[in-house]
Amino acid sequence: VGEAWAQSKSAFTNTLMPMPAKISAHAGELTLTPDFRLSASGFRNRRLESGLQRLRTRLEYATGLTLSRELTAIDKAVSLEVRVQSAGQEPQSVNEDESYALKVTAVGATIDAPTVVGALRGMETFLQLIQGGSNGYYIPAVKIEDSPRFPWRGLLIDCARHFQPIEVLQRTLDGMAAVKMNVFHWRLTDDQGFRMESKIFPKLTGLGSDGLYYTQAQAREIVAYARDHGIRVVPDFDMPGHARSWFVGYPELASGPGPYVLRRKFGIDDAAMDPTRETTFAFLDKFLGEMAGIFPDPYLHISGDESNGAQWRANPKIVAYMRQHHLKDTQALQAEFNQRIEALLTKHGKHMMGWDEVLHPALPKDVVIESWRDTRFLVDAAKRGYRNILAAPYYLDHMKTAEEYYLADPLPPGLDLTSEQRKLVLGGEACMWTEFVDSETLDSRVWPRAAAIAERFWSPLEVRAVDDMYRRLSSASLRLEGLGLTHLTYPEAALRQMAGTEDIDAVRTFVSVLEPYGMSADNKTIQLTPLDRFNNVLPPDPPDRYKFYVLVQSFLQHPSADSKGGIELNILFQRWRDASEKVQALMETSPLLAEGRIRSQQLRELATIGSETVDHLTKMSVVPAGWKESTLAKLKAYEKPTDMLVFTVIVPLKDLVSAVQ
Amino acid sequence: VGEAWAQSKSAFTNTLMPMPAKISAHAGELTLTPDFRLSASGFRNRRLESGLQRLRTRLEYATGLTLSRELTAIDKAVSLEVRVQSAGQEPQSVNEDESYALKVTAVGATIDAPTVVGALRGMETFLQLIQGGSNGYYIPAVKIEDSPRFPWRGLLIDCARHFQPIEVLQRTLDGMAAVKMNVFHWRLTDDQGFRMESKIFPKLTGLGSDGLYYTQAQAREIVAYARDHGIRVVPDFDMPGHARSWFVGYPELASGPGPYVLRRKFGIDDAAMDPTRETTFAFLDKFLGEMAGIFPDPYLHISGDESNGAQWRANPKIVAYMRQHHLKDTQALQAEFNQRIEALLTKHGKHMMGWDEVLHPALPKDVVIESWRDTRFLVDAAKRGYRNILAAPYYLDHMKTAEEYYLADPLPPGLDLTSEQRKLVLGGEACMWTEFVDSETLDSRVWPRAAAIAERFWSPLEVRAVDDMYRRLSSASLRLEGLGLTHLTYPEAALRQMAGTEDIDAVRTFVSVLEPYGMSADNKTIQLTPLDRFNNVLPPDPPDRYKFYVLVQSFLQHPSADSKGGIELNILFQRWRDASEKVQALMETSPLLAEGRIRSQQLRELATIGSETVDHLTKMSVVPAGWKESTLAKLKAYEKPTDMLVFTVIVPLKDLVSAVQ
Repeated sequence: VGEAWAQSKSAFTNTLMPMPAKISAHAGELTLTPDFRLSASGFRNRRLESGLQRLRTRLEYATGLTLSRELTAIDKAVSLEVRVQSAGQEPQSVNEDESYALKVTAVGATIDAPTVVGALRGMETFLQLIQGGSNGYYIPAVKIEDSPRFPWRGLLIDCARHFQPIEVLQRTLDGMAAVKMNVFHWRLTDDQGFRMESKIFPKLTGLGSDGLYYTQAQAREIVAYARDHGIRVVPDFDMPGHARSWFVGYPELASGPGPYVLRRKFGIDDAAMDPTRETTFAFLDKFLGEMAGIFPDPYLHISGDESNGAQWRANPKIVAYMRQHHLKDTQALQAEFNQRIEALLTKHGKHMMGWDEVLHPALPKDVVIESWRDTRFLVDAAKRGYRNILAAPYYLDHMKTAEEYYLADPLPPGLDLTSEQRKLVLGGEACMWTEFVDSETLDSRVWPRAAAIAERFWSPLEVRAVDDMYRRLSSASLRLEGLGLTHLTYPEAALRQMAGTEDIDAVRTFVSVLEPYGMSADNKTIQLTPLDRFNNVLPPDPPDRYKFYVLVQSFLQHPSADSKGGIELNILFQRWRDASEKVQALMETSPLLAEGRIRSQQLRELATIGSETVDHLTKMSVVPAGWKESTLAKLKAYEKPTDMLVFTVIVPLKDLVSAVQ
Repeated sequence: VGEAWAQSKSAFTNTLMPMPAKISAHAGELTLTPDFRLSASGFRNRRLESGLQRLRTRLEYATGLTLSRELTAIDKAVSLEVRVQSAGQEPQSVNEDESYALKVTAVGATIDAPTVVGALRGMETFLQLIQGGSNGYYIPAVKIEDSPRFPWRGLLIDCARHFQPIEVLQRTLDGMAAVKMNVFHWRLTDDQGFRMESKIFPKLTGLGSDGLYYTQAQAREIVAYARDHGIRVVPDFDMPGHARSWFVGYPELASGPGPYVLRRKFGIDDAAMDPTRETTFAFLDKFLGEMAGIFPDPYLHISGDESNGAQWRANPKIVAYMRQHHLKDTQALQAEFNQRIEALLTKHGKHMMGWDEVLHPALPKDVVIESWRDTRFLVDAAKRGYRNILAAPYYLDHMKTAEEYYLADPLPPGLDLTSEQRKLVLGGEACMWTEFVDSETLDSRVWPRAAAIAERFWSPLEVRAVDDMYRRLSSASLRLEGLGLTHLTYPEAALRQMAGTEDIDAVRTFVSVLEPYGMSADNKTIQLTPLDRFNNVLPPDPPDRYKFYVLVQSFLQHPSADSKGGIELNILFQRWRDASEKVQALMETSPLLAEGRIRSQQLRELATIGSETVDHLTKMSVVPAGWKESTLAKLKAYEKPTDMLVFTVIVPLKDLVSAVQ
């Protein structure tokens, strides 16, 4: 699977992401000319047509060609013929058929799909196939049969901690569609802000949002935009905890005495809804009914996480209620709350979703569990008969490498589940929590790493070669930039701002070995802190990390000073030294840049270690006694996070040093 | 004026743009700390407060500090105290008092201004003063008294040829405010599209916009956004020519038989409104009345340009009308049309504006003339008693250098006008016509060059040192990027797309010597052509152009191989050679990049010429007979535009070669 192309005689370079289920490459190619046409020759509707027009625009930009806007084939012109059988579901469900077959020959191309969504997936693959050569742009001859491994391939964006404007969400949806993700998990409330307009309860955003929220018209616009891209929207309103923002306007919902203001710090807040008062459920009934009218998806997320029970235990009336109803602890009280919410959601035509905290013996079986704390909750949920999705290994704010996310499988072969239980695992979600991420830095925290997760959810289990993933990820990253995502441009712009100059070659080299530290003990940063420091703007897992790893491994195969690897390493270490010096000069007039001073001094040390090691390995110098041990100790010291930054080059440098005899 | 700082003992580095009317620098500085506060201690309203909150956010991002959101001074904290006397005019008029005084000492700062707009101008200056040092960020002690030279400092954005989304206009307004421009000339209609919603005549956008237009709510939003930034909005509805888009929905307005479709090519269209039918004026009466309710500014632009009269001469009824009314030519007919429009506008409370074609003996004196064809129309208009503004030298699509725009003065000393006539010259407008500019490329065509024009309109006549302008422009460019403008990021992103790789160092070097050719004979490009070629994405007047010029001049002072200049030139020429080779390798798989093949080959030639010349000038080699003449001839040949690109380095290279004995 996914590897047939490698054996082909075709000149095709596979940069597809996610890798299709089946692909074979053939001799020949379809040359793209101004006469090239797109046609919809089967079922067609506005959704398919707008998808085709977007395909045309992107094809035009990729090739510089101006193409016809007519969606019909004509005799003389080569075309991509899209043959769809039906509209698919309205609203799109978790069971939507997303399969497609794509065939490209020298005389034309076809996409066959049972639904419009399948055709949209095929069009993304078609775009990813574009290659350039001396005769212009072309699509290599291929035959692809494709469908996803998991039906639920989500991306959560936390729009509460930092508000994300509509245009940011739209380009996020563009990116999701490009890598065939199909669920936008739209997190709309938290202690730090209530982001969704309610016309019934206007004080939710009126007092609880700092004026930063989505109108109902905008929410409908996002739902429609997502549907156009074959993406479902699952809204998330956290309850009974993470709910302080509700109480700013409606303190009567809370379990403790008001008044309330928005929480500016992060972490767990004691404030929680009062689950013992009928007025709470009357409020939520109306609110959920109103939201059900805006979000057509059959699922609605109530989160239910991190409710610590503190406010409940502190309220004598609630304590009395628990005693009266034989609820032995606050978990049991929350379980009762969840049951009532589930009943309300059922009444409004929705299935309830919740994080793994909602797992409780009394929980109705209809609820879908999202495991965030650990993969074992996935196993637990599945064994107990709940459908579920996996988020735990895919937290993008943990700043892990694409490789780590990529190799985490929702259903690895050894998992102790029956085949029936395995079917309950619907897929997974990448999660972008935004405590330390604003609308400027969002893209560079989501992309391109989410593309590797998207492949994990779509492609066959066996597709897991890391080197090939990184090779294709670099192409995917550029394609995502072509859609308007700012993961490559924003870090550069931010570095220019920090450096106070357009001439940032040295700064680029400096930060090429650094990445932000994820699970931080950063309790200085609150919601109002400007996110303009190194750890906010540097991309996690920068491409140079894996490149350096590969360079070192290749050098270690045949360590010689005049080998390609030896020369490249020495040039690189010299560049590090030069950059260290130049960046320190820039720091004189830039306090924000100067926050990286320790790292810049260490970079010089690392360069020295690197050069010395290459000299030692290539017999250019004699290894002093104790050098290896002291050098490894130094590297170990540099491995620790400093100023919220970590070096990406320590492990390969340790490999280098360890190779010295 | 504007130079006092240079004599001061202060460490202040002046990067202000536009240069204030009066500035003196003093010893000392105001240190920015987390306790720093902003306060409004005089008149205050929502406009001033939102300006102060924006100032706080930008100050926070520039410094990394989290500042108080309270707008009151407290005893212990250093503050910027803004003391305003009044709200200023509603709507803001051409006579608004924009003056302010800014004083910064070690213990605090004050802005005094008669109006909120003046305070907004002062806040922009305050932000431009931020400097960084080893003790953090600070504002150097200065005293500034400032007010504009011209009251009308505009930027025209053509939103008809290529639609510009709301968020693009918002960041354009941010940029304008940052350089103290105060009129957004919003061009809303042309043959290629009608961009403003009319509820009375819905077919204007319904059939004439490709679905790309501004709703009335959005237009009001832009007007409010502009007002918040101290910017007036003058809408522009071109008539009777450049009006084909009106006729798609309402062919009865036209002078020729319909039906009409949008024009996709550029240039002058024959279609024109029928000025002989009362129904035309009845339509325009209603339409202009509707627009008058959306745009509060007392001025409304009807353009009136490039109406060639062809459709009028071809219509027997119109010819008969002209004969009957003793109108000797189509100019006379247009003058009559203009008089009637002017009467309608007066009725709706608006002053009419028009391009210099509307100048006709019969034109009412109330009309404001905008000179676009030549500065002599400015003189003509002023002599005849019309108020006027100058656009002719400031066409940004002509792709001239910042220097050329900068040195073009609306009122140069030698102009043959009395002092009374000079007062009729209100200012000028930079014009961004968008035949070849879409929403992606707009910023890099407007900025940073428009900042140099903004200084021309704001600062004293005597401020005109080009080297100092370029030095300050590079700071202004970074500040504009900090506002979210994409003039630096988009060209890089586009080059990555063209090259198909993130590793574009060589491409950067290649394009550093190129710029787009402006006044083109490009009649291949129509409205639907993707604008993704070199000439679309490369910035005009790239910073390297002036840097190379300076480097060559400095080398020519003392030509020696081991001088700083000699070394830098040789490194640079070697980089050109390397880049030429690497870029040609990338071209193998990128047809769009390969469109620059001839230029990449010529770059290698230029590098050779450069190195040879440095060798000759430093006596490292003997000059072969005829070398100088043949080399100058080669340079002359390379000077011509090829593939819509021009080299930026030819003139300095000629200077180099000419210096060889």
